[in-house]
Amino acid sequence: MDTKKILIVSAHPEPRSLNGALAAFAAEELRRTGHDVRVSDLYAMRWRPEVGAGDFPGHDPAERLDVMGASGRAYAEGHLAPEIAAEQAKLLWSDAVILQFPMWWFAMPAILKGWVDRVFTHGFGYGTGSVGRALYGDGTLTGRRAMLSLTIGATEPSFSARGVHGHLADVLFPIQHGVFHYTGMDALPPFVVWDSLDVAGSRFEALKGAYAERLRDLFTTEPVPYRPLKGGDYTRTMELRSGREGPDAQGLAIHLRPASPR
Amino acid sequence: MDTKKILIVSAHPEPRSLNGALAAFAAEELRRTGHDVRVSDLYAMRWRPEVGAGDFPGHDPAERLDVMGASGRAYAEGHLAPEIAAEQAKLLWSDAVILQFPMWWFAMPAILKGWVDRVFTHGFGYGTGSVGRALYGDGTLTGRRAMLSLTIGATEPSFSARGVHGHLADVLFPIQHGVFHYTGMDALPPFVVWDSLDVAGSRFEALKGAYAERLRDLFTTEPVPYRPLKGGDYTRTMELRSGREGPDAQGLAIHLRPASPR
Repeated sequence: MDTKKILIVSAHPEPRSLNGALAAFAAEELRRTGHDVRVSDLYAMRWRPEVGAGDFPGHDPAERLDVMGASGRAYAEGHLAPEIAAEQAKLLWSDAVILQFPMWWFAMPAILKGWVDRVFTHGFGYGTGSVGRALYGDGTLTGRRAMLSLTIGATEPSFSARGVHGHLADVLFPIQHGVFHYTGMDALPPFVVWDSLDVAGSRFEALKGAYAERLRDLFTTEPVPYRPLKGGDYTRTMELRSGREGPDAQGLAIHLRPASPR
Repeated sequence: MDTKKILIVSAHPEPRSLNGALAAFAAEELRRTGHDVRVSDLYAMRWRPEVGAGDFPGHDPAERLDVMGASGRAYAEGHLAPEIAAEQAKLLWSDAVILQFPMWWFAMPAILKGWVDRVFTHGFGYGTGSVGRALYGDGTLTGRRAMLSLTIGATEPSFSARGVHGHLADVLFPIQHGVFHYTGMDALPPFVVWDSLDVAGSRFEALKGAYAERLRDLFTTEPVPYRPLKGGDYTRTMELRSGREGPDAQGLAIHLRPASPR
């Protein structure tokens, strides 16, 4: 069997929570099936969420902090704060990344957003054009797969195409398309635990079975078919050329490649 | 003139940044025109972004931390961490709220997401059904207005209806609809500084003029016409009934009330 390297980033304050259990289960299951696993348990690591001057030890405090400039220089010169450099190294080491979190306010918890904000620096996460990487579909993390594993307190119909909370694919677009696809990763369909406030013992066993299946297929599941920015679909002003979307594509779904005719 | 109370929540590590300047300008301009202003400068306050047991001083550390339960109890019993209770009091004091931030990774910076995560507790931000408040259009903050003032490094076409980054209205839906409208606030169209890495002196003067106009109209601008959850548009499973949207409404825009015929 082909051994792969998987990074799990986990974001819940309580290890005994459903999220804690799912992160532990994934690590165990992936190791059991022969893979190498590293876990960034952000609460256990006491991860600082907010971007600040401390991220860039070379920054002169008397000088105005330009986050993009300071992070790009610190990345290029190799003097980012060590905890940030360590997370970048884990991402580069990985073949796949799993983010485990509870959906809070239709987005990632602050500590996980702060992992993205601080780790995906200029030169690493964005502003990579100068090093020959386009954005969307081609970036520092090209060749890696990424999957969200999230718990949602609401029920599935409320996040359906007509659900009041917004279609889940649209609500997750800023992460799936804006973080994963942007940096070159293949975004997989998310693994979602719906109605997550009510997960009793027998339901948890069933969830583990479903999650084990997703983990088993981590390297074969078809990614979400977002379009590359370079390749002809977008204009120079980064707008989708007219007529490129499928006949039924609406809203953010226009950024998916239409299914090939059979 | 009618004096109003406005809370500005600001989220940038550098006071000398464009975001710092816009927050300071808004406070000054609103005061100059006779309003009461309070500012929560999250970096200056050293706001802790991550939800944790420390938010709920009554929580027994030996006990499993159930964030929803612990936050709801702490809110109901009046023993939330004082910095959280203070922000809730500011929200209740306000007639309007302005969030000032740079868009990072298609969302709020972690420190601001952490202001939402920690302040909008169970019983205050959600789970208010038991106190007679529906969600979406009716909540603890009903009667207040809310506006995003954000800076975006990209250009406007790249966030247009066909822009590669996603239509701005869709990318902001989790905040505008999911935080503001959910808690009862009237979400106003955002004030956006595009191409924000290149704001020289003369352009900044023009921006101040445009922002001053938005601030002058803060209480008369038409809010985004999101639908109330209660009122007949949604089913019991919280899905929009068929045929309710306007003929051209697509994607997340189905959750807008169609314009009335003239």
